[in-house]
Amino acid sequence: MATENFLVQGFRAAAVNSGIRGKDRLDLALIVSDKPATVAGVFTTSLVKAAPVLLDMERCKTGKAQAILVNSGIANACTGEEGMRLARLTTAMAADALNIAPELVQVCSTGIIGQQLELACFQRGIPKAAQSLVGDGLADVAQAIMTTDTFRKIAVRTALIDGKPVKLLGMAKGAGMIMPNMATMLSFILTDAKIDHDLLQSVLKKVVAKTFNAITVDGDTSTNDTVLLMANGLAEHPPIAENRPEALAAFAAALEELCKELALLVVRDGEGATKLVTIRVRGAVTEAQADQAARTVANSNLVKTAFFGEDANWGRIIAALGRSGAQFDQSRVDIAFDDVFMVQNGLGQGAEVEARATAVLKKPEFVVTIDLHAGDGSKDIYTCDFSLDYVKINADYRS
Amino acid sequence: MATENFLVQGFRAAAVNSGIRGKDRLDLALIVSDKPATVAGVFTTSLVKAAPVLLDMERCKTGKAQAILVNSGIANACTGEEGMRLARLTTAMAADALNIAPELVQVCSTGIIGQQLELACFQRGIPKAAQSLVGDGLADVAQAIMTTDTFRKIAVRTALIDGKPVKLLGMAKGAGMIMPNMATMLSFILTDAKIDHDLLQSVLKKVVAKTFNAITVDGDTSTNDTVLLMANGLAEHPPIAENRPEALAAFAAALEELCKELALLVVRDGEGATKLVTIRVRGAVTEAQADQAARTVANSNLVKTAFFGEDANWGRIIAALGRSGAQFDQSRVDIAFDDVFMVQNGLGQGAEVEARATAVLKKPEFVVTIDLHAGDGSKDIYTCDFSLDYVKINADYRS
Repeated sequence: MATENFLVQGFRAAAVNSGIRGKDRLDLALIVSDKPATVAGVFTTSLVKAAPVLLDMERCKTGKAQAILVNSGIANACTGEEGMRLARLTTAMAADALNIAPELVQVCSTGIIGQQLELACFQRGIPKAAQSLVGDGLADVAQAIMTTDTFRKIAVRTALIDGKPVKLLGMAKGAGMIMPNMATMLSFILTDAKIDHDLLQSVLKKVVAKTFNAITVDGDTSTNDTVLLMANGLAEHPPIAENRPEALAAFAAALEELCKELALLVVRDGEGATKLVTIRVRGAVTEAQADQAARTVANSNLVKTAFFGEDANWGRIIAALGRSGAQFDQSRVDIAFDDVFMVQNGLGQGAEVEARATAVLKKPEFVVTIDLHAGDGSKDIYTCDFSLDYVKINADYRS
Repeated sequence: MATENFLVQGFRAAAVNSGIRGKDRLDLALIVSDKPATVAGVFTTSLVKAAPVLLDMERCKTGKAQAILVNSGIANACTGEEGMRLARLTTAMAADALNIAPELVQVCSTGIIGQQLELACFQRGIPKAAQSLVGDGLADVAQAIMTTDTFRKIAVRTALIDGKPVKLLGMAKGAGMIMPNMATMLSFILTDAKIDHDLLQSVLKKVVAKTFNAITVDGDTSTNDTVLLMANGLAEHPPIAENRPEALAAFAAALEELCKELALLVVRDGEGATKLVTIRVRGAVTEAQADQAARTVANSNLVKTAFFGEDANWGRIIAALGRSGAQFDQSRVDIAFDDVFMVQNGLGQGAEVEARATAVLKKPEFVVTIDLHAGDGSKDIYTCDFSLDYVKINADYRS
């Protein structure tokens, strides 16, 4: 993709090395809107929330933001009052460099839990970033927020609203502590759409439930999960509003596509992942039970290591379903790997079918469809396999 | 340990190769009581229960059993009506060989899910085992029920009841699909105690909650989890009864010690495990919340890979606590590795303390104590670390 795709009118960005992560890595970034934008955010549901999450939640309520300050390397989580003080102080430093009100600065951190930010890095990095802001700096920000990610995650969509193009650009980071219960660890979405805060918040929340909140790498929800969406209203359409369902639907659809693309990139880059697997549960008693069933399968280490071993091991899948809490009759369960019906009415379909199922598992991407035949509830959860590299990465990396 | 420890008066056993698992491995066994014994059982809470589990649950209600037929290699789970028929038929074959009523035969299977038992193996193996029954055959049974286990798990206790010795002998198998919600995959306990069915069942249930149900290797509950306890009443004490609390307590204490020893052996032999870790939660609002918090930490892949990496990574522990659903104030949490207080009031205690905590993590066995300071609820959960070998084993082994 050419970098001109990574532009949204009215937004500028820069990423710099500030010394948090050695001398070379991009580790501090600013995203700035030329004018105050409508902001919406969804945040981790973990009881243990990082300082920047607490600050952003408070500021998001005002409905307006003009800048996002972000660093990788240190999560500023479990850092007590000093962590809150530093979160506030660094946003004030950014506000100062940008000549805007501190309340308009959102802040995100990702990295090691339990360490304090080093102020010197921000003193060094913030002015440098503020002076380097450019329209096509967003791709660098996507780079700067990576931790164990192996590639940067950035996606764009254009919606047509009242015949006018509206641009959406999003970025995200993974790659571990991923079963977001709000969002992947960090995702920033920028758009020139015109839309008010309450509506933007409500659309974002619905979209996140179906995208970022439907992925899992390791079943662990982070202390720092944050999705921030800034809409600066520079597009030429009349404002998106609840009484204009067509415009709202066009915007929501583009946002959902964007978030889904980013969410799947996070799973694809899950720590050690070699396969992207959709666990599609159908026929559950309720949607909540479908979610429970799909999530239990998607998080089962035994299922995920079988995927890594390219073993069409439906026994582990049905065992996970059995402990999931979802209600069903095991003699009615069907399980398919892509279009290969490996299990019908709770029974395996023999060696020939298994050979075809095994061929599906050799693919880098496939769908496991589970029909419980117990009701109408359905849910897709996106997961990855569980490889030797997951253990290597996490036995060595300090999160 | 000398094998004479592995005797309980009135019980005989034998293990043979029947061809289920090739030509050499012990894969089929019988445990037989000389006279009908009182039986108690606890079984998987998975909605997906294997055929032998369903049959045993039904037969357990009669309160009497005289034999246990067990095979490894095939779990007889997800095998439909044919699986039920084979479970019944094989117990009838055993009853025939032992000249007892089929209803007195319990049956357990462990191994691959979704395959049918091969009748020829049982036709070959059952008479061979019935002809080889000996008092010291129990150690061979412990060997025969192993799947990915690396060592056999057998333990003995002697309780003094009214001054008379009562013997308890237990065996168990692990080593994967272990977060029993009734029991480890299979455990058999034999005793010469005199006790009636209802009381035996109630004691066993309480003990299992604190022992087998407090361990986890991988968070996966099996379709075949079964603990069977047979008491033949040959010991010389007056019957254990509810109105004799001292006798009951002595029996329950010995049973709990026995089950805990077996449960910890299962964790120690957890697939790929190199460390046995106790997650001890104190000060939770309720015991249920303590259980939730301890279990979430004990099952977190990020926490467990950090243990494998010998990294005193309390950030991952507090992140797991945060998503556990337990209520607490993060600024009051204390976390210790053995006696090293790494986190106090939610904050890390610095590099010197971390160095001492890291030394604790290098040990093969340690306790992580988490005090939430939110109430009186407490719970110990026993877990292991998560190594490269876990993935290797489970990418290759078909369960």
